[in-house]
Amino acid sequence: MNARRTGRRPGSPDTREAILAAAREAFAERGYDAASIRAIAAAAGVDPALVHHYFGGKEELFRAATAFPADPGRLLPAVLAGGPDAAGERMVRVFLEVWDSPTGTAAVALLRSAVSNEWTARLLREFLVTQVLRRVLDQLDIDPGQRALRGGLVATQLAGLAMMRYVLRLDAVAAAEPATLVAAIGPTVQRYLTGDIT
Amino acid sequence: MNARRTGRRPGSPDTREAILAAAREAFAERGYDAASIRAIAAAAGVDPALVHHYFGGKEELFRAATAFPADPGRLLPAVLAGGPDAAGERMVRVFLEVWDSPTGTAAVALLRSAVSNEWTARLLREFLVTQVLRRVLDQLDIDPGQRALRGGLVATQLAGLAMMRYVLRLDAVAAAEPATLVAAIGPTVQRYLTGDIT
Repeated sequence: MNARRTGRRPGSPDTREAILAAAREAFAERGYDAASIRAIAAAAGVDPALVHHYFGGKEELFRAATAFPADPGRLLPAVLAGGPDAAGERMVRVFLEVWDSPTGTAAVALLRSAVSNEWTARLLREFLVTQVLRRVLDQLDIDPGQRALRGGLVATQLAGLAMMRYVLRLDAVAAAEPATLVAAIGPTVQRYLTGDIT
Repeated sequence: MNARRTGRRPGSPDTREAILAAAREAFAERGYDAASIRAIAAAAGVDPALVHHYFGGKEELFRAATAFPADPGRLLPAVLAGGPDAAGERMVRVFLEVWDSPTGTAAVALLRSAVSNEWTARLLREFLVTQVLRRVLDQLDIDPGQRALRGGLVATQLAGLAMMRYVLRLDAVAAAEPATLVAAIGPTVQRYLTGDIT
């Protein structure tokens, strides 16, 4: 009955959430390769066997831990609502809301892992292209011949914002108000989506 | 006399360059933490003791290996020549020239290490702020109250360009001609340096 160490019932949603929270922190703190299910289980106060029971292996746990803050089905309607003319600004605002939230630590984990782990890089690239960029550009009715480049340009700006604000923590970017960054970076994303890029 | 395995004279500039080239490749391929002096020495065809003799420890070797492609004293005059009005475009062009060159692998190493290693992140941040951004912004005569934010914004765009072109290798960005990226991203950097960001 070791799994009840902290008094949580093994089958309860609380337990699952506690494991996911511990996993997000471990992956963000140590990266995908160095985080262990044993340590995650210990941080969540459960038996490692319970982690395996809920999530299978480490890869499945990682995907579960990173799924929420990057769920495009939930986020993109807010970006796309109201047409193409302010999509850039809204995209930066939603991006900051997600990454500034507690679950944003999972996104930092994904970025760290993608840099050091080719499998994660491939996963992130696929996710970005198929789940985020393609959906936005389809909705905005962009010339198909320019979609890939425009999507890639948006990715450069948002990935770099994440790098400087959350990973390298360059002071001026890490400490800036979201509204300051939306005002400065929104027009860039807007131009990459619908403006002149030649 | 193991150090003469490949016929290079231990004291020659060739040997030093061979060690640096092997170090750049090892750090880019495996990241700072996983690269070993033993493996670097083997790749360079010299004894590990010779690597220690020339460079001291792994940190010193890393700094020596990453120094060239990011030497601001050599690169920034080209960016700053001709005044502020096209500095953004020139900054992107010089950035791509460095990172597209064979020595750009060292810059990829620095970025990978900065993401997984707090010491390297601090080093890169310090280097970026004091050696690159401060020099550019000083020369361009920017309002001191806006320098840090403007420099940080430039850093987000260039770091993201490096991430997508060289680390995650998002196809549309990795395969793009330098001129295409200079045309698209140059105006962004220019606006961050001297334009309206509010």
